[in-house]
Amino acid sequence: MRVLGVIVEYNPFHNGHLYHLTKAKELINPDYVVAVMSGSFCQRGEPAIIDKFSRAEIALLNGVDVVLELPFIYAVQDAGGFARGAVWSLHNTGVVTDIVFGSESADLSFLQTIAEVMVRQPDPFPELMREELKKGHSFPNARKYALMKYFEITKAMEPKEVLKIEKSNDILGIEYIRSIMLLNSPIKPHVVRRVGAEDRDERFQGKFSSATAIRKCISNGEWDKISKALPTSSLRIISRELNEGRGPVFLQHMETMILSKLRLMDRSQLQRLHGFDEGLDKRFVDCAVKTTNLEDFFSCVKSKRFTLSKIRRLCLYALFDITGEFVERSNSLGPQYLRVLGFSSRGRELLSKMKRVSRVPIISLCSLYRKVLEQAMKKPERFQLDPQLFEQQLLYDIKATSLHALLFPKHSERIGDKDFKIPPIVIG
Amino acid sequence: MRVLGVIVEYNPFHNGHLYHLTKAKELINPDYVVAVMSGSFCQRGEPAIIDKFSRAEIALLNGVDVVLELPFIYAVQDAGGFARGAVWSLHNTGVVTDIVFGSESADLSFLQTIAEVMVRQPDPFPELMREELKKGHSFPNARKYALMKYFEITKAMEPKEVLKIEKSNDILGIEYIRSIMLLNSPIKPHVVRRVGAEDRDERFQGKFSSATAIRKCISNGEWDKISKALPTSSLRIISRELNEGRGPVFLQHMETMILSKLRLMDRSQLQRLHGFDEGLDKRFVDCAVKTTNLEDFFSCVKSKRFTLSKIRRLCLYALFDITGEFVERSNSLGPQYLRVLGFSSRGRELLSKMKRVSRVPIISLCSLYRKVLEQAMKKPERFQLDPQLFEQQLLYDIKATSLHALLFPKHSERIGDKDFKIPPIVIG
Repeated sequence: MRVLGVIVEYNPFHNGHLYHLTKAKELINPDYVVAVMSGSFCQRGEPAIIDKFSRAEIALLNGVDVVLELPFIYAVQDAGGFARGAVWSLHNTGVVTDIVFGSESADLSFLQTIAEVMVRQPDPFPELMREELKKGHSFPNARKYALMKYFEITKAMEPKEVLKIEKSNDILGIEYIRSIMLLNSPIKPHVVRRVGAEDRDERFQGKFSSATAIRKCISNGEWDKISKALPTSSLRIISRELNEGRGPVFLQHMETMILSKLRLMDRSQLQRLHGFDEGLDKRFVDCAVKTTNLEDFFSCVKSKRFTLSKIRRLCLYALFDITGEFVERSNSLGPQYLRVLGFSSRGRELLSKMKRVSRVPIISLCSLYRKVLEQAMKKPERFQLDPQLFEQQLLYDIKATSLHALLFPKHSERIGDKDFKIPPIVIG
Repeated sequence: MRVLGVIVEYNPFHNGHLYHLTKAKELINPDYVVAVMSGSFCQRGEPAIIDKFSRAEIALLNGVDVVLELPFIYAVQDAGGFARGAVWSLHNTGVVTDIVFGSESADLSFLQTIAEVMVRQPDPFPELMREELKKGHSFPNARKYALMKYFEITKAMEPKEVLKIEKSNDILGIEYIRSIMLLNSPIKPHVVRRVGAEDRDERFQGKFSSATAIRKCISNGEWDKISKALPTSSLRIISRELNEGRGPVFLQHMETMILSKLRLMDRSQLQRLHGFDEGLDKRFVDCAVKTTNLEDFFSCVKSKRFTLSKIRRLCLYALFDITGEFVERSNSLGPQYLRVLGFSSRGRELLSKMKRVSRVPIISLCSLYRKVLEQAMKKPERFQLDPQLFEQQLLYDIKATSLHALLFPKHSERIGDKDFKIPPIVIG
């Protein structure tokens, strides 16, 4: 049995995503497809444009058999933490045999060579890395320059090649491979070449536009463009959600929420949170009183050392009080459960197999999570769980979804705790 | 030298306030008038309709000589905590000789008799109080019934008379007298009869309308009515503030701020805060996910035991993380400073006298507060300060004002930390 795993955000699901899924299936010829998907917030530090339930629905309509929620605490981390949570989740299913990811370079051995350096940290790489960080580069840039110098010395690769990892999918790809290595997972990684626009490209590029460009079109109500870039089912469900007042959700809607939280926080409180090092606590506190809107706030905090995505993620850490300890425990112990957002009729078969072999318990009905945890704790030979972390990770998924609902345009749709009310989406 | 002290919110300053001030001056014939005024948030758990700086300006234009800010931690407490902070501030000036407050009953000896029972707690009053609370009454109601039973037994007063303390100014009046007694302050209390509408009366009553009614008219833009109920200078400055986009500010503007904060909080976090007893932590958490707007949230939490004002104040405690410990320390150690919001030319004379005799240091320029504290700490024979509490109280005033500014309609006016930028308002 071959089970294809994909790591996605589907924010929203577009033609590029469908292309990737089709190519991946052609490559693997899998019996089943499992997607692990960001929930209410995404890796760029933004709320998802529509809720996780309808994004799962779209994924199922487009050929995914089981949609799992990537826990919030991984979904809003940098590429390393995001990849770790996602790969670990697929590994935890016990059934996924292959991961296919999009890549600009589409050069697996190149990505593997780099991932190996990052995992094994052969001399003099750690020293080179420290040097580059000292120069004031952001972490991804420091890594890039350190790798170039490392390959200059070791000649294992043409140093210039390293420049290829400028692109976001390659950066993530390296992290996926690295996570597979760190977990000693039997899962095989594969790449398919990305088509169309780059993720960050805000320009509309027709059929293969980026999710960023599509979100922009949704914000502007340019439906002629949107309909060109999305599969019909995606267009239909997004339209349904927007008509019912459950979207579109934008970071902009969180402006006073974020600024008020930051204006009420002290540096000492920020310092307890994940990622507020290198003077970012002071920058955040100072900029929150100096500026009057999110855009100005981001410009005020930004420097070449910190990407905009990082700053947005830090805003979420402040809003949600994400401590360094929570992130570290999550990254070292891994996701404590598999939350099923939806499945197809084929997915139902796969889920019953997963229930026998998964490395963490499976949550289908969130309202029963205490029972799931209790029963899992009775099987210490199968599950190595941290019950406190289990609850903390899950409650953050639930809270994130309650907060996300507050951002809906229609007041009466802003009900919280939907995780306790909405059962998994079943298609077919 | 006689110095009249008044305790005010001026939210906004209206004809009833001017009447009270005039009557109080006729009664005392003071050399100077000092007002202690709520800052950015008021006792009913709402943001002030315009900022504290312009409200201080209006007070000065209408005959107050020095406006002091009632620290946030007292301004948003129940009648007892509010009165304690306000009376203690006036006491701390070292110059105030008389306090005049508005009263529905205008019967000082009646209010004093009741205040005395509350201070001295003669038998069997404490027992009666416990019994009434057990029956599920709110604190003010339990106190009312316990007092009635107490006077039935002791015959010190006609029990029915106690029913007079239904009215908000009398309730506050009793707390003012009680605070004077508790502080052993030489300040003499006086009453003047209130004219016009009751505080809670939302109906417009012409010249003497309540602040609540006037705020409602401002919300509706009924300027013909508003201009009838306000002195010209008040009308002029409110108009100026609104024209410049710094108001009107309503609780409604805090809707997603408050609901998002509550949706992200656990019961255990709420329990650490002031006032979340009697199951209110659970009610708040449950209602925050069940409801989709503030009004529904309030209805969801409300019961005969909890007044709407109390629930609104609790929302502020949640938003600002006001711990029980902070309130208790503030109530037992008192305000740690006198913050000058503004003064008239006569006020300047009084301030220089105050600087010699005040019981806590005077802050005129907020940006110099560290220096003020440092110098005060060098005089332990004069000031008994808790430096940590000093800083905590002041930082909350500053944060409250930074948050209040975020509620302004005009984006560019939403700058924070105005306390560090705006010097005291000087009139005349």
